[in-house]
Amino acid sequence: MNFAHVAIIGLGLQGGSIGLAVQEFLPGTRVSGYDLDPAHRARAAERGLAHVVHDSAEDAVREADLVIFCVPPGVMGDAARAVRPALRPDALISDVGSCKGSIARALGEALPDHFVIPAHPVAGTEHSGPDAGFAHLFRNRWCIITPPEQTDLLKLSALVEFWEALGANVEHMNAEHHDLVLAVTSHLPHLIAYTIVGTASDLENVTQSEVIKYSAGGFRDFTRIAASDPTMWRDVFLNNKDAVLEMLGRFTEDLTALQRSIRMGDGEALFGHFARTRAIRRSIIEEGQDDSRPDFGRGDHEGIVPAA
Amino acid sequence: MNFAHVAIIGLGLQGGSIGLAVQEFLPGTRVSGYDLDPAHRARAAERGLAHVVHDSAEDAVREADLVIFCVPPGVMGDAARAVRPALRPDALISDVGSCKGSIARALGEALPDHFVIPAHPVAGTEHSGPDAGFAHLFRNRWCIITPPEQTDLLKLSALVEFWEALGANVEHMNAEHHDLVLAVTSHLPHLIAYTIVGTASDLENVTQSEVIKYSAGGFRDFTRIAASDPTMWRDVFLNNKDAVLEMLGRFTEDLTALQRSIRMGDGEALFGHFARTRAIRRSIIEEGQDDSRPDFGRGDHEGIVPAA
Repeated sequence: MNFAHVAIIGLGLQGGSIGLAVQEFLPGTRVSGYDLDPAHRARAAERGLAHVVHDSAEDAVREADLVIFCVPPGVMGDAARAVRPALRPDALISDVGSCKGSIARALGEALPDHFVIPAHPVAGTEHSGPDAGFAHLFRNRWCIITPPEQTDLLKLSALVEFWEALGANVEHMNAEHHDLVLAVTSHLPHLIAYTIVGTASDLENVTQSEVIKYSAGGFRDFTRIAASDPTMWRDVFLNNKDAVLEMLGRFTEDLTALQRSIRMGDGEALFGHFARTRAIRRSIIEEGQDDSRPDFGRGDHEGIVPAA
Repeated sequence: MNFAHVAIIGLGLQGGSIGLAVQEFLPGTRVSGYDLDPAHRARAAERGLAHVVHDSAEDAVREADLVIFCVPPGVMGDAARAVRPALRPDALISDVGSCKGSIARALGEALPDHFVIPAHPVAGTEHSGPDAGFAHLFRNRWCIITPPEQTDLLKLSALVEFWEALGANVEHMNAEHHDLVLAVTSHLPHLIAYTIVGTASDLENVTQSEVIKYSAGGFRDFTRIAASDPTMWRDVFLNNKDAVLEMLGRFTEDLTALQRSIRMGDGEALFGHFARTRAIRRSIIEEGQDDSRPDFGRGDHEGIVPAA
């Protein structure tokens, strides 16, 4: 089976990208969309993020055999309850949220009569809102699907094919393991980036304009991810609390050990730690999850010979 | 005055970039180079990082009126002592190191009869070695010069003009303040990136291949700066210990406060923190210190309309 009509609730970076990608890669599929914010709806219609952008969430889902909630984790349940009366009984319910355990529970409680198969495309940029989406966001990125133990296998395989059509590679895991993996690959990095950007802007002996001016020394890389949508990230930390706190505990232990090495002047320990982290970078580039161009190709690098 | 002959000791990312930039932007100036590693010398000669790559450091500096040490902070003194007998008495001594207090002391002690004016171009990539340099590394980047109180003003202004010719914007500050500013904009970000990459690779409940696979969720941004040269970074932390420990203490306090907000479920505190960090990102882009393209232009973003 293929989905004939996809409804997208929430037309930000993820929802808008899905809408554009469906129109580009699944031309036979209909897309309808809705966003709670009237200004976002207007802009989404202007950009053509869906074939039709509706002024009511119920109208958006009425014909759909796949409904994807692309709203912050904390309002998934509310968004689902709002469309419940208009849903087709056979509509598959999915989402794109970054924490799967709590979202699976929220959607399941809001729509007890529907099949819910949560999904998480591990793709994004620091931008958000209806201007941020683009059709190729998911290309060569992983989409993690966390099906419940009892599910409709036909619908599951249709969802896999849907994401593959949008360019993603699909992986399955259970929600609990997903939340642990994402705590370390996404949630902890964001928390740390938000922290250091805050620390840097609160100093009294270094001015904010100095921090901005000399950010090319490394700090600017943290500001990119600390520019992500604050509402979504608040909800991620509240909804994946246990895994984030566990990873944060480990990080703090490791940081304390490096702090002691600096204080003691233990160059050997520092070198040993710094040398082993290079191999991971190499693997990430080999697997196509980042760009090997120095500095991600910022600015001009004419004539550069890439490092071996 | 202009420099007629620049000698570069250490032909890695910084030294190689200076050599290429001089040849491109100061065609009347002679460049000689030396690197301790014979393989690096051979590769530097192949890439033409200098007009002549010498097999002896003394030969490299013999004619030079500007000698720039581009070696890790911990070996600046040794590198300077090695060339002392061959230096012209009027040669200006400079460097490109990331911590200025300890380097100024090391160079001053090694070469007590020469004028030493330390400099730090705040520019780089995650690559190192003789293949990493490129002529445009310094374009639109800041170069911080930390002149001692007693200095030769003619030589100082020649050094400023030299860096401006290579494309940099020059700023002056004292060494102590430089080390504090860089501790927050560069050293602390690197320490944190090295830490989290280490934490992620030591987990027993999430595999390293999962960390690599799902790194697009934020983690990959940290791996870039954690791929920087381990020798140089060991030396930076050992040579800017006090400022780094101070900044690290503030960071840990702030992280502990956010950890408590997560544990308590205090969404308002989290949102408040996350919302204020966006403004800094915007300023960094406005001042040309980073690229506004989402994700730094990784991959294809056809048809994207940048977010407002």
